[in-house]
Amino acid sequence: MTLTLPAAEAARELVEPVLREAVGRLDPLSARVARYHFGWTDGGEAGGGKALRPTLAVLSGRAAGADVERCLPAAAAVELVHAFSLLHDDVMDDDPVRRHRPAAWTVFGRPHALLCGNALLALAGELLLEQGCAAAARALNDAVLALVAGQALDLEFQDRDDVTREECLLMSRCKTASLLACACSIGVTAAGGPAPLAGALAAFGTEAGLAFQLADDLLGIWGSTEATGKPVLADLRTRKKSLPVVAALTGGTAAGRRLAALLARPEPLAEADLHEAARLVEEAGGRAWAEAEAGRRLDAAVRCLDEADLPADVRAEFLHLARFIASRDH
Amino acid sequence: MTLTLPAAEAARELVEPVLREAVGRLDPLSARVARYHFGWTDGGEAGGGKALRPTLAVLSGRAAGADVERCLPAAAAVELVHAFSLLHDDVMDDDPVRRHRPAAWTVFGRPHALLCGNALLALAGELLLEQGCAAAARALNDAVLALVAGQALDLEFQDRDDVTREECLLMSRCKTASLLACACSIGVTAAGGPAPLAGALAAFGTEAGLAFQLADDLLGIWGSTEATGKPVLADLRTRKKSLPVVAALTGGTAAGRRLAALLARPEPLAEADLHEAARLVEEAGGRAWAEAEAGRRLDAAVRCLDEADLPADVRAEFLHLARFIASRDH
Repeated sequence: MTLTLPAAEAARELVEPVLREAVGRLDPLSARVARYHFGWTDGGEAGGGKALRPTLAVLSGRAAGADVERCLPAAAAVELVHAFSLLHDDVMDDDPVRRHRPAAWTVFGRPHALLCGNALLALAGELLLEQGCAAAARALNDAVLALVAGQALDLEFQDRDDVTREECLLMSRCKTASLLACACSIGVTAAGGPAPLAGALAAFGTEAGLAFQLADDLLGIWGSTEATGKPVLADLRTRKKSLPVVAALTGGTAAGRRLAALLARPEPLAEADLHEAARLVEEAGGRAWAEAEAGRRLDAAVRCLDEADLPADVRAEFLHLARFIASRDH
Repeated sequence: MTLTLPAAEAARELVEPVLREAVGRLDPLSARVARYHFGWTDGGEAGGGKALRPTLAVLSGRAAGADVERCLPAAAAVELVHAFSLLHDDVMDDDPVRRHRPAAWTVFGRPHALLCGNALLALAGELLLEQGCAAAARALNDAVLALVAGQALDLEFQDRDDVTREECLLMSRCKTASLLACACSIGVTAAGGPAPLAGALAAFGTEAGLAFQLADDLLGIWGSTEATGKPVLADLRTRKKSLPVVAALTGGTAAGRRLAALLARPEPLAEADLHEAARLVEEAGGRAWAEAEAGRRLDAAVRCLDEADLPADVRAEFLHLARFIASRDH
């Protein structure tokens, strides 16, 4: 899926040259993997992703009244960290598809995908530090630590059958929302803007990030292959403890108990079982809760924007992005 | 093997509390893996490693006349990056033993070992940035990028049979010497000492690092299990393109050609083949070259020290460490 907002297209055009220059500094082997991951090698537009985080970072800089040029290293750095996390995630999850294309590890091998991710993480720090943006580098580091904490929780949840909705929200807050919160505030930080503005935009990013994850989890069950690039019912196939599933399992309903029994079966789930599982998530209230929670998070995000005292055009674009995020086509 | 120099023991005692405090900030899952890796969980003294890099970093600070306390975050940061690289290396190489104990991934699984490595890398940056040491953070980032480049080359060499001695030295310079060079200079950088002093100590670290790798590669063939924690002839078992092997293969001798034919056999090498391979490396001059090259690198390291205009006690300790490194028990 490509974000078709003018702000995203503009940000992509501005940030891509910075990303390409940065990737060009890597050792040839890591650079080759990175270029493939970013979709610069095979003409696939989808490869580049939605550029959501760079768009938010550029908006963040504009929120502080900064020159757009000044925010581009920060925008590129956030995208490099996102790429690092995707490269590593796909290796750890054994996931062969990324953005409708073979994941990098399937093309270059797991070690090279891991090494490329590591190089991108170090490169992200360098982009900020060479601009003298030590505060932004620290913010990005914090986001990486939260991201790792979220990935570790996600792994741990796979082996547990007593995950609560609150734990699942905490995991999403770490794994997904922390980097989005960083993207929403790093432009302010990099430009030396006021800390309360950075704080309000980080809070906006956290709430929007949770809405994003809820939407993504709904897509993981009810999204089309066209929208997700994955098989239908993908998250049920892998028995992922996604937010709608956990909400269904912990709601105290008969449907939730039937869902738990179905997911506890040792054998792979047949097509009919997957459809039954999706129906049970819905009957147990998991879908309705996730949709309502996404709405509540979006409302909370809007309230954070109101606190931020933004220029009208910047506010409108943040709002537009948050709504896009929370209403992904499912 | 434990470094039994007084400087190393002192550095270990000073740096360990800083490391423990830093690891305590991680998410509980990553902290658990890190504590195991550092040998803090099972009373194994060997688990903590030689503390070579923190020792060099503390000495580096003393070279700039800095208060030792001021260098400890930098010393800890270098050790965190070293731990990151070991955790990832063992996953990528499928290596089940680290410092005479089961590698972390065999205990916690590959994903958790990878995530812990990532967390340690971000934490290293944080330790420096929270002290306002942006220049040191950049130096460490540069070392990480070189390290990754070296790991990528190392992987690439596994699939090639035409690796030259120069390529192999370049790989070692990236993979091993870059972080040692960083350790030798980061104390100066963190203390705001003169750039030429940092440069001379980095050059010392590079040469000493190459001597270290040569000694390590010699141990990988002729070292005892007691010294290496690995099976004897370990590097020949895995057909690693180590420096003595590459020197033997590229020396234009009949023994080198026989070695190439032996290593090209598709089946696993029997015990007798391994001993024959070691004999051929020696006959082809690989052992003598590696020993002589280690000596040359040590001499070059000493010349770098002479350029650095160091306090006599600091110079003596750097020299002692370099000699220890290049003369590891093989």
